[in-house]
Amino acid sequence: PGKFKAKGFEIVTKTKKLGEDDPRRIRHSLKAGLAITLVSLFYYLRPLYDAFGQSGMWAILTVVLVIDFSVGATLCRSLNRGFATLIAGALAIGTEHFATLFGEKGEPIVLGFLVFFIAAASTFTRFFPVVRRRYDYGAMIFILTFSLISVSGYRVEKIFELGHKRLSTIIIGAATCMVISIFVCPVWAGEDLHNLVADNIEKLASFLEGFGDEYFKFSEDGDSAMVSKDDNSVLQDYKNVLNSKENEESLANFAWWEPCHGRFGFCHPWKQYLKIGVLSRQCAYQIETLNGYINPQPQAPSEFRRKIQQPCTKLSSESSKALKELASAIKNMTHPSSCDLHLQNSKAAAEELKIALEASPPVKTDLLEVIPAVTVASILINIIKSVEN
Amino acid sequence: PGKFKAKGFEIVTKTKKLGEDDPRRIRHSLKAGLAITLVSLFYYLRPLYDAFGQSGMWAILTVVLVIDFSVGATLCRSLNRGFATLIAGALAIGTEHFATLFGEKGEPIVLGFLVFFIAAASTFTRFFPVVRRRYDYGAMIFILTFSLISVSGYRVEKIFELGHKRLSTIIIGAATCMVISIFVCPVWAGEDLHNLVADNIEKLASFLEGFGDEYFKFSEDGDSAMVSKDDNSVLQDYKNVLNSKENEESLANFAWWEPCHGRFGFCHPWKQYLKIGVLSRQCAYQIETLNGYINPQPQAPSEFRRKIQQPCTKLSSESSKALKELASAIKNMTHPSSCDLHLQNSKAAAEELKIALEASPPVKTDLLEVIPAVTVASILINIIKSVEN
Repeated sequence: PGKFKAKGFEIVTKTKKLGEDDPRRIRHSLKAGLAITLVSLFYYLRPLYDAFGQSGMWAILTVVLVIDFSVGATLCRSLNRGFATLIAGALAIGTEHFATLFGEKGEPIVLGFLVFFIAAASTFTRFFPVVRRRYDYGAMIFILTFSLISVSGYRVEKIFELGHKRLSTIIIGAATCMVISIFVCPVWAGEDLHNLVADNIEKLASFLEGFGDEYFKFSEDGDSAMVSKDDNSVLQDYKNVLNSKENEESLANFAWWEPCHGRFGFCHPWKQYLKIGVLSRQCAYQIETLNGYINPQPQAPSEFRRKIQQPCTKLSSESSKALKELASAIKNMTHPSSCDLHLQNSKAAAEELKIALEASPPVKTDLLEVIPAVTVASILINIIKSVEN
Repeated sequence: PGKFKAKGFEIVTKTKKLGEDDPRRIRHSLKAGLAITLVSLFYYLRPLYDAFGQSGMWAILTVVLVIDFSVGATLCRSLNRGFATLIAGALAIGTEHFATLFGEKGEPIVLGFLVFFIAAASTFTRFFPVVRRRYDYGAMIFILTFSLISVSGYRVEKIFELGHKRLSTIIIGAATCMVISIFVCPVWAGEDLHNLVADNIEKLASFLEGFGDEYFKFSEDGDSAMVSKDDNSVLQDYKNVLNSKENEESLANFAWWEPCHGRFGFCHPWKQYLKIGVLSRQCAYQIETLNGYINPQPQAPSEFRRKIQQPCTKLSSESSKALKELASAIKNMTHPSSCDLHLQNSKAAAEELKIALEASPPVKTDLLEVIPAVTVASILINIIKSVEN
């Protein structure tokens, strides 16, 4: 029993943490519950049940399949669901009529063959990248509706009436989801994307900010430097940026479906965010390499490191300032004004560094030359940003 | 009409290419078609239809929702679907009985409240990482089945019989999918993962192989070096490795569900592949940094580059050989025998390089020091590999 208690306590703690990390999760759960309860009125209210009967089930099914965390995802699925059902339904009724031409014996054979062919073909279309990205869900629903209607059409007489009822309940279910996701505490994928991109740049900036100090900790406190590296989480934050690709792409996809909201217009250039994302990741790769040099064994001789300390620290702190400027410019959607200044400074620091290098022995120079590459990347980001504004 | 023709032609070409790139896609489509046609026999065959009636629809629904490209994915969904339906069904019938205690007026209110509460709670569980990774689909089906059965139980009298019929058709649908995916041209996620990991290491190796030649093209053919960089796709292959994380993780997830097959036992250490994947990615980040130095403006002075050419080329080609050895060892599941030798050679080359560096001016040395880092990474991979065998 003690074990159970501990386990139970662990689950409670985790649940609390999940909710606190992002309160929108709790709200999303409540919204999902609300949507399902609303569409189950099809069963509870006598007049609705008399009108739709068992078809009310399709509204529940639609809500469960369609509702998702962000507005974009819900809209994407709702619209896919609606249109796919419509097209598949029409096609299925056509197929069914065509199959009846072959008489009672031939009908199931022709029908089976057509269902096989269309199901296989539409499964194959799901491999096309563009379909996979935007209409995968629609293709699935298409196969589902088509096979259901054309096959059950073989047995059910009033197929038009059945289809009509189902379609209207599906549309009501999808509409419920859309309304709830847009008007009750909406979670916009576009806003998430916007913040994600800005946060990523900020993470890179905080690495560069801390890097100078971390690298130039001298041997008098050599041991403490080791320890601080492990628990210095600010310096490790950039690692999230390395694998942000998938996340950014799905957000951009969903953002494409969202109507204009808040500061985001209808044709907001979501693709620009992906470009910035690619550049941030390039920057992060460089930083990953840099990070490998924070605690090398053996260290470069410290008199050499003292020589380059000043320009190096300046270089990384100026690049960091430029990136921070950029991040806040993205967040507030303004033009990054003092960014150019910091870039100029960091370029000047890079020049100083080159001079210092030419006057000293050639050890551990790599570290220093990588930073200009970072600077170059940040310049690129800057250009893109200017294009966007 | 000319435009349509061109568009049609384009689609045909793309379709052909998709099929040729991976013929398993065509087979998968045919398998999906086959599974759907098989379960639609519930409608075509008179005795089956008499026994199950409209419940046959659930078999079709299950097949469409469950069937997926790899065996692991299909099994994961089928089992999730089956168990979630069972648990949700039992819980829903319990809930329904409980709600009837509150009389005719109270029943819909109590039922509505319970459905809201359970739907919200299970939506929230989908945010737990472990549920999201392995049972996300099951949670969705749980919500679906629970709301459908408990809500429709309010109107339908013979809820046990209905549930029984539905459950058996769902099980038949899921079983059909499992059998078809395992026995008809199976696509194993585990095998895909195995090959993906080995291919990724090979891509890194081919970059390092080509890198020496590419970097040490001297100014007499400076222009041609530029051109060749753009169309030298071997050198760019490694870029796929950078973003392989998501893909590897989902494959490892699906592989977890697969029974033993071919050379893979039941408890094959799939997590080891993820570790190798992480190391390959670290390696790829270093290479990304290196790649930035292939065509810098301005180039380092060529007399300096001549000095370091010999050890550098040796270093990168020996690391490349070690990685290739490793990749083929993973592919054939043998112990990498000559890998250590190549690593020794590359370490020796790194020493030579250091000596050459100390005798020359300090420009563009970074490039050279990064390669040892790659070597270190490859040593790490090697260790992991030894652990695995």
